[in-house]
Formats: sequence, C-alpha cells, structure tokens
Amino acid sequence: MTFYSKRDLQFQLFENLRVMELTRHAYFHDHTKEIFNLVLEAADQIAENYLRPLLTEMDRKEPQLVDGKIQVHEGMKGIIRQFGENGWINATFPYEEGGQQLPNTLHMAAGFIFQAANYSASVYPFLTTGAANLIRTFGSRELIEMFTPDMYTGKWQGTMALTEPDAGSSLSDLRTLAVPTEKDGIYKIKGQKIYISCGDHDACENVIHLMLARIQGAPEGVKGISLFVVPQKRVPNGTSNDVLTEGVYHKMGYKGAPIAHLMIGSNDGCEGYLVGEPHKGLSYMFQMMNEARIGVGMNATAIGTAAYHASLAYAKERPQGRKVGEKDPSKPQIPIIQHADVKRMLLFQKSITEGSLALLLYCSKLSDIVHVGEGLEKEEATLLLNFLTPIAKSYPSEMCCLTTSAAVQVLGGAGYTTDFPVEQYYREARIHPIHEGTTGIHGLDLLGRKVPMKEGKALQLFGRELTTTIFHAKEKNELSTYAEKLEKYLGKAQQTTLHLLAKAGNHTEAFLADATLYLEYIGILTIAWQWLKQGITAQEQLEKGTSEHEFYQGKIMCLRYFYEYELVKMDALGKRLLSSEMPTLDMQENWF
Amino acid sequence: MTFYSKRDLQFQLFENLRVMELTRHAYFHDHTKEIFNLVLEAADQIAENYLRPLLTEMDRKEPQLVDGKIQVHEGMKGIIRQFGENGWINATFPYEEGGQQLPNTLHMAAGFIFQAANYSASVYPFLTTGAANLIRTFGSRELIEMFTPDMYTGKWQGTMALTEPDAGSSLSDLRTLAVPTEKDGIYKIKGQKIYISCGDHDACENVIHLMLARIQGAPEGVKGISLFVVPQKRVPNGTSNDVLTEGVYHKMGYKGAPIAHLMIGSNDGCEGYLVGEPHKGLSYMFQMMNEARIGVGMNATAIGTAAYHASLAYAKERPQGRKVGEKDPSKPQIPIIQHADVKRMLLFQKSITEGSLALLLYCSKLSDIVHVGEGLEKEEATLLLNFLTPIAKSYPSEMCCLTTSAAVQVLGGAGYTTDFPVEQYYREARIHPIHEGTTGIHGLDLLGRKVPMKEGKALQLFGRELTTTIFHAKEKNELSTYAEKLEKYLGKAQQTTLHLLAKAGNHTEAFLADATLYLEYIGILTIAWQWLKQGITAQEQLEKGTSEHEFYQGKIMCLRYFYEYELVKMDALGKRLLSSEMPTLDMQENWF
Repeated sequence: MTFYSKRDLQFQLFENLRVMELTRHAYFHDHTKEIFNLVLEAADQIAENYLRPLLTEMDRKEPQLVDGKIQVHEGMKGIIRQFGENGWINATFPYEEGGQQLPNTLHMAAGFIFQAANYSASVYPFLTTGAANLIRTFGSRELIEMFTPDMYTGKWQGTMALTEPDAGSSLSDLRTLAVPTEKDGIYKIKGQKIYISCGDHDACENVIHLMLARIQGAPEGVKGISLFVVPQKRVPNGTSNDVLTEGVYHKMGYKGAPIAHLMIGSNDGCEGYLVGEPHKGLSYMFQMMNEARIGVGMNATAIGTAAYHASLAYAKERPQGRKVGEKDPSKPQIPIIQHADVKRMLLFQKSITEGSLALLLYCSKLSDIVHVGEGLEKEEATLLLNFLTPIAKSYPSEMCCLTTSAAVQVLGGAGYTTDFPVEQYYREARIHPIHEGTTGIHGLDLLGRKVPMKEGKALQLFGRELTTTIFHAKEKNELSTYAEKLEKYLGKAQQTTLHLLAKAGNHTEAFLADATLYLEYIGILTIAWQWLKQGITAQEQLEKGTSEHEFYQGKIMCLRYFYEYELVKMDALGKRLLSSEMPTLDMQENWF
Repeated sequence: MTFYSKRDLQFQLFENLRVMELTRHAYFHDHTKEIFNLVLEAADQIAENYLRPLLTEMDRKEPQLVDGKIQVHEGMKGIIRQFGENGWINATFPYEEGGQQLPNTLHMAAGFIFQAANYSASVYPFLTTGAANLIRTFGSRELIEMFTPDMYTGKWQGTMALTEPDAGSSLSDLRTLAVPTEKDGIYKIKGQKIYISCGDHDACENVIHLMLARIQGAPEGVKGISLFVVPQKRVPNGTSNDVLTEGVYHKMGYKGAPIAHLMIGSNDGCEGYLVGEPHKGLSYMFQMMNEARIGVGMNATAIGTAAYHASLAYAKERPQGRKVGEKDPSKPQIPIIQHADVKRMLLFQKSITEGSLALLLYCSKLSDIVHVGEGLEKEEATLLLNFLTPIAKSYPSEMCCLTTSAAVQVLGGAGYTTDFPVEQYYREARIHPIHEGTTGIHGLDLLGRKVPMKEGKALQLFGRELTTTIFHAKEKNELSTYAEKLEKYLGKAQQTTLHLLAKAGNHTEAFLADATLYLEYIGILTIAWQWLKQGITAQEQLEKGTSEHEFYQGKIMCLRYFYEYELVKMDALGKRLLSSEMPTLDMQENWF
C-alpha cells in the first residue's frame, strides 16, 4: 500500500524548494541530484522492506517491562542495525567524523519516508542522531570518542532526558541533582525522569541519556540547569550505572516505541559526565529541541500523509451511492471519490499534509543554511527558522489530528476497525501536539518570544518572504487572485499582531491569553504562503506544457482548496484576537 | 471520579428546559418532580455501582468470537439484568404494556448518565428499547406478544440490522432477500449484515433483529425495502434460526460492545416475520433511526462530558508553571487551571458539552410533544424535531471528537497514557460521526431535505424559536449584546441559506457540495441559541440573588466563551458557503 508520494517528494525537493542550491556551499559541494536520489531510494527500500511490514504488529505487541528491562518488538534490532550500518544516524555529520555531510533537508526527507512507513520504528535512530549531535557539538573530545562511535552504528541508543514528575512544561522546576565527585567532569546524578522516549530497551546494548540536571548549589530556575551524558551502563566496562527502569508507559498509540520512567542514582551509583560548561545545559539542549521540534512537525505530517494515501486508495475502490440527483437505483454505484464531500475530505488531507511538508522542508533548508552559511544569509536564516519553529512544530501536529480523522471518516465504519491502518494513524497523530512542548507552550513561544525578539525583526523577515512570493505570484494571471488574498491576510495579520503587542507591556496576561489561537492564525497564513509558492512552481510547469498535467493540476486545485476552505478561518480567529472580551481571564476556578 | 454534573442536569431539566411542563399532558400526568428525581437518582446508582467500575476493563477485554458465539465481558449479564429488572428498557411505554409512561426526556437524561459512566455498556439496553418500540408500534399483536416481554426484562437483546457490505450510506442498495413461505407473514431470509451493534453476545439468551430486507420481486431502491423481525433463535422453541456470526469487529474504541458480521440464512434455515406492510420498512425503520440519531448525539455529549470532568479534576490538582510574568522560580507552582490557555480548553469542553446537552434534551422534549401532543403544537414539534435531528446528531458527534482531544491536551503526556481515562474517551468519541449516518449524510439531509421541506416551514419555525429567545434576552441588559449577535448571525444564516437554495434547481451538485459545512454552520448557530437560553435562565437566578452564584456565573461565562470563540467560526464558514468557487467539484479523481 502506498504510504507517501515519491512524485510529490521529488516536486517538493527539486522543483519547489530547489534543494540543489545548497550544493553551492562547500560543505555540500560533493553532492549531486543523483546522489540525493540514491539517498531517497535507499530510504524507500528500508521503509518498504523493514519498517512498513511491522507497522501493525508493533502496534499490537507493545513493549513490556520484564525483570527491569523493556522488551521491544524483536524486529527492532534488525531495523536499528540497518540504520546504523547504512550510515543514517550520522549522515549529516562531517566526513572527518565518519559522516556523509548530507544536508539536513535530505535527512529530513528520508525521515519523512521512514515515519510515513512506521512512525514508532523511525523514532529510535533519530533520537540517537540528536543525542550524538549534542555530544559532538558541545562535548569534549574525550566524551565524543567515548560515546559517539557506538551511537553511530546503532549499537547504542541516544535519548533526551528532560521531563520529571513535577517538571514537564515548566523545565525551570527540574530537580534532578548532580553532585561533583573527585573525578574531573564526573558527577553523581540522582533524580527521576519520566516520558523518556527509547529510555530503555533490548534492541541496543546501551542507552546514552543526554540528561538535564542541577549541579548542587546551582541557581534556581533555568539558569541553574546543566547537561550531562548519563549512560545506562558504564563505559567501557559495561557495568550498571544505576539508571533503573521504573516503568514503561502504555499509550493510546505510538506503541512501538518504549517510553520509560527512569530512576537515576537511587543507590547512589550513577555517574554522569558534564557536557560543556555548568549551568548552560538548557541552551545546549535547545539545539536538540529545536531540531526535534521540526522533527515532530515532520512526524505528524508523515503520519497524516500515510493516512491520506490509505483513504485515497479506499475512496477510489469503494463503490457507494450515486451522483447527487441520480435517482435510478438500477444504475451501478459509483466510487466514493466521485462524491464532492469525499473529495473535500481528500483535498483537506492533501492540502494540509503537502503544505506542511513544504514548510518543513523549507525549515530544514534554513537549518542547512544556518549550519553552513555565512554573514547576512546565515543571520537571516537563523532568525527566520527561530520564528518558524513553533509554527512548523504545531500546525502539522494539530492539523494532522484532524486530517487523520478525515481519513477515518472517508472509510466510514471500516475506518473505525482495526482491519485498516487509519485508526492507528489517528491514535498516533495525537501525541504530536503534546511532546516537544505542547501547542500552548509554542503559542507562548511564538507570540511572547519570537514575535517581539530583536524589535520584531524575525516577524519582518517573515513578512518580507511572503511579500516576495506574492510579488512573483502576481506575475501570473492564474495566480493573481490568490496573491491578492494572501496580501490582504498578511496585512490583517500584521495589524492583529500590533494590536496584541500593544498589550504586552501593561496587560501581559491579556497579551498572551490567546497565544494558542495566534499560533493557529499565523500557521494558516504560513501554509497559505507555502501553497502560493507551490502554485507558482506548478503553474510554471503547466505553462511550459508539461507532460504531467494531472500532477500539477492537483497542486493548483490544492492551492484553490486551501484558500477557499482554510485561509478563511483567519477571519474567525482574527475577529477573536481583536476582541477586548477576555472570558478565559475572567473565568474563575470555582465557576467550572 | 465525577463523570457528569448532577447540578447541571438539574439545571438543564427543571430550570432551563422546564420539563415539568410535560406533566400537563394526560400521558405524563402522574409524574412529579420527586418521581423524576428518583428516576435520576436510580440511574446514578446503576451508573456508579455497575457501569463505571467496568469502564476500563471492558475496553481492555474486548469481545471475542469463540466457537461461533461472541463472548462479552462477564459483567454485562448483571448490568443488562439491572436495566431489565428496574424497568429501564420499556420505561417510556404505556402502563398497559408494563411501562411507566416516563417522558422520553427523562429516559434520555438517564441515558446520558449511563453513557457518561460507560458508553459501551449503555448501548445494549437502549438498542433493545428501540427495537421493541418498532415491534410495538408497527407489529401485529402476535409479534408484540411473541417478542417484547423478554426484551423488556433484558433476557433478549434487540438490534437494528440495516448495513450490508455494499449498502452502508446507500440503503437503497440493500440486497438481503425475503421469500414468502406458506406460513402467513413468515419469510425465508437470506443475506448478510455488517456492523450490527450487539448483533450477537452471550449476556442475553436470544437476539431479536429488526432487519431490513427486500421481498422477492420488490421494486428496486428504497421503495422495495421491508422490515422483519428475525430472531437468532426461533421462538418459542429456542432452536437455531440460521443467523450465524461470521465475525466480530475489532475497533479503535467502543470496545465493550460487540459489533457483529452476520450471515443470514446461509443454510436456507432463517425465518423472519414481516412487520407492518410490505415495502414500508424504511419508513418504519426511520422511527428507530431518528430516535437513535438523537441518541448518538447524546452518546457523544456524554463521553465529552465525562472527559471534561476528568480533565477539570486534573487541572485543579496538577501544579505546573507560574502565572505569566512571574519569573521567580522559588515561588511555588500553580495548579494549571489558573493558566488562561487551560481555562480556554476547559471552557471549550464545558460550552460544547453543556450546549449540546441543552439541545438534546430540548429535542427529547419535542419528541415527547410529538408523542402526546395535539394539533398545532404536535405539528410544529414534529417539524422542528425533524429539522433539528441532523444537527443534534452531528454537532455533538463532531465536536466531542475535539472536546475529548482538548481533555487529552489538558493532561498533557499523562493524557496520552492509559493511566487516565481521557485517551479512551478520545477513541470512543470517534465512532459518533460515523454511525447512524455519517456527518456527510446528515449534511445532505439538512440542506437537501429538511431546509426545503414544506416550502421551508421547518426553517421558518427554527428562526421563530431563535427570535423568541433573542426577544427575551434583549430584555436583560447583561444579555443584550449576545442577543444582538445571535440576531445578526441568524440574519446572515438566512441569507446564506437563500443563496444556496437558489442553486437547488439548476446546480444540484453545487447546491449540496458543501452541505457538511452548512450543517456545521447551522450547528454553531443552534448551540449559540441554546446558550442564550441558558444565559436567560442563569441571569434570572442571578437577579434573584441566588445562593449558587458560582454555578450561574459559570453558565454566563460559558455563554460569553461560546460567542467569543465559537460563534465567530460562522464568519469563515459563511464566507466559504457564499463563494462561487467550487474546487471540490472541479477536482478530478486522477489529479489526486
């Protein structure tokens, strides 16, 4: 069963994003389109042969905690080995570290394929990549040599260990303690961590936690948090490092990945290695978190994409009912894809997932430029990526809960049964608005931090990018209506933002009370922009008289759908955001 | 754990709906408020003692097909017996039939309590009520005496058996065949039925299917469908009637209720009893389906209510973060209910579920008036109920997918685990936009049938009811803003409806292409009306200087929330509905 569109991924990367532009940077100089296509083809093969076949089974055979060890599906060992041996874990790292200097954009595109095939299985190697990247960026040579080689091969699992029972959204309340020892850079760690993805399992030989803790005597709050490498087993001797698995979470979906509750140093036997300088842990971790946030948006998009293709296939095959107005019951039934309401549900899924994919690959390209660019280009890419991160994380996460729901609806009763994969996609999509910062947290991040930062420079850059796209779209007759609409909504969004910012000084609570709605509002605008960009790319091909008329018409129809059905939602959100009524502030706890 | 608000149910029934007005009808004359409260208290006790304790367990121990028989949770036998022995199954039927002449409104309110406690378990007896009601309304005395007594005691299960593999939304394509026999009124039945709720299980001794089939030689389409009673075991001898269970569906949620795939007459041994006249089956079945549709709205609302109360309890207890602007990390964390965004998610849930409950109880009262009323009152109630049924089915069904999602979000990571019930509510809510007619079908019903019927008379009645509420709300200073808003949106909705109707003749496809959006649009308007009504009731109490200030303030705040955050969504939907662009019609199958 198709779970993503190869054709669309080609369009996204090479035609719309123009990913080959990256190869003008020295770091990516060796790469060609052929190499990138080999990378994508290799990802497709792993997805098809290793990940996809276990999708359902990994959902049904959940990880179990047996004698203190989490047992995962027996197929995971082989999958992780595939990722390690084929160089996926450190693909983006420099040649001298054994990497391939692959652009993050291609790594993300490959990730999209893996995630669409089997989200749970795809999580393990990507976590290791993020953890290893933290060590190699901020750790000493000693730490790098000690830990990263076995992470790159997939022998060891990497994690990010942040959350504690009393510190989820509020990281400043972390309590895990690090006490210096006589050994330089080594601390005794004590505390507990919850919701640690891949925090323990039997498909790898060791688990390397990148863990936040507070050095004894450190300042309160976020300024006193440090980053440690905390292996499950000591290196190199492999004895226990007193990181015990207290439990494994049973979840609604995303069941193939083990989420652990860990007790650290309960027997005073846990040693951790300080990464970088003391008290800078949170800023280091934010490197991993920002990558992970774009990653979460991609996970959601991939799951939404797989659900879209499953429901599309069903809609083409399932006969039910007749055209509106056709009353003759002796006429044969038509495939449901011919009903307007089913087409609406498919266009909804297609426009959200392909629009999100465009945004996420765009962000990935920005991250490549941040990595290898220089001067103004790098500075602007950094700002823009910072601004877009909460949107790229949250819009796909929230919306793919709805697109997977639409996929279930297309299948009707069948969609609610376990005979089809869409119900699993619906359950798996639901984690994304929660992990790596809830949608509420990202709303506060966008409106409270990203919009005002550097006197609104990121917001201005964002506006400039949209204006550029609008300018080019206006050059095409077929797109000028959409360009004008986007221009109008951009103008409204700027006014609305100013209206909100006016409250920032004196009425902080009122300023931020509807930050989640603001995030949705700007999210819609952002995806509308991505659709206008795709529209330009498609229209150029249509003007050239492409032989793939149908593919590009599909893109134009999605643009039209998005502007007719989604963009208008900004009217309702905008009205609310401009209102002076504040029921969520006035509401009292005991009135519920 | 609280799963509904007794106080709110009192408000809804006695203060807002004025359910006691029904007792002026002779049929309900014997009832008093005390009796109604005893009924509600009895329902609460069953819910608390029998249903609620099995909520989680019934989700985890799914029904299984063993040797051709579906085995359900062992507790179901006792639960069904409770319903039967305490007279719940035939409570609304006349005294002379052993019933209690209980208003449907009270039966629905009790159902709401059962469904909030354990949705799957509540389904069994309500299906039997509906099936028995069909027999007693349209069946012969012989059929009534043969089947209903053991259905009333809960010894036998009733079902509605409509769907077939090729006939789901398209009932006109039913193929199950009925061949006359020598015995008067008895037919040989042959075919298969899928998705039959409680279609087979071991908690009852027999299953009585109210089944649609086509008499040999009957006209094609809906005009050739007849209704039969098809028992699983023959009556009275208890031998097999050749209704075999081919399978049990495994589902995302709603797992405690067995949904069966049935083979009927595979060995030519199935006898069915014709109910009423030949070829009138669908019109008979619509009695049951219309009741069931209001019932589905109530199910969704009840699940949404239970999720709301679970997330409310969590939000009051869970400390996390500090007030916006409070930077001192040494200050204690605050309960998350104090965060504006959490209050927003709670107000969302409260306003949707209590607004839906008000609508559903209002529809139930209309159904009582249809049943016992006379003349114009009955005529108008019939029309209005007809008009409101697709809305009362679909708005709560669609929205409670979102409210249960908000409940999950309030709990964050915890909400995604099976340690809390909200993930189960999220899964269970998802069936309701599908069964008893998908949302798409109800959109077509509302716009294609209910709006134009009797020259728009139902729509006019609906407008008149809203106008009456607006008139009364304008008399109160505190509510006049909301009254004016509702008046404005009602006016817009009338214009939008006329705009759509103008296409009805020449462009039927365009007329109905966005019927689902129209349903949502009118749904929001309807719930806004229900909130204005509740606002009037609450404001009257506040003016009287009630001692329950907090409860009524909560109602006023919900009204404000709904008008600020939900009603504005009509702007976006209205804009779309007035647009002449039709991407869902223009989109071609091979462009996806």
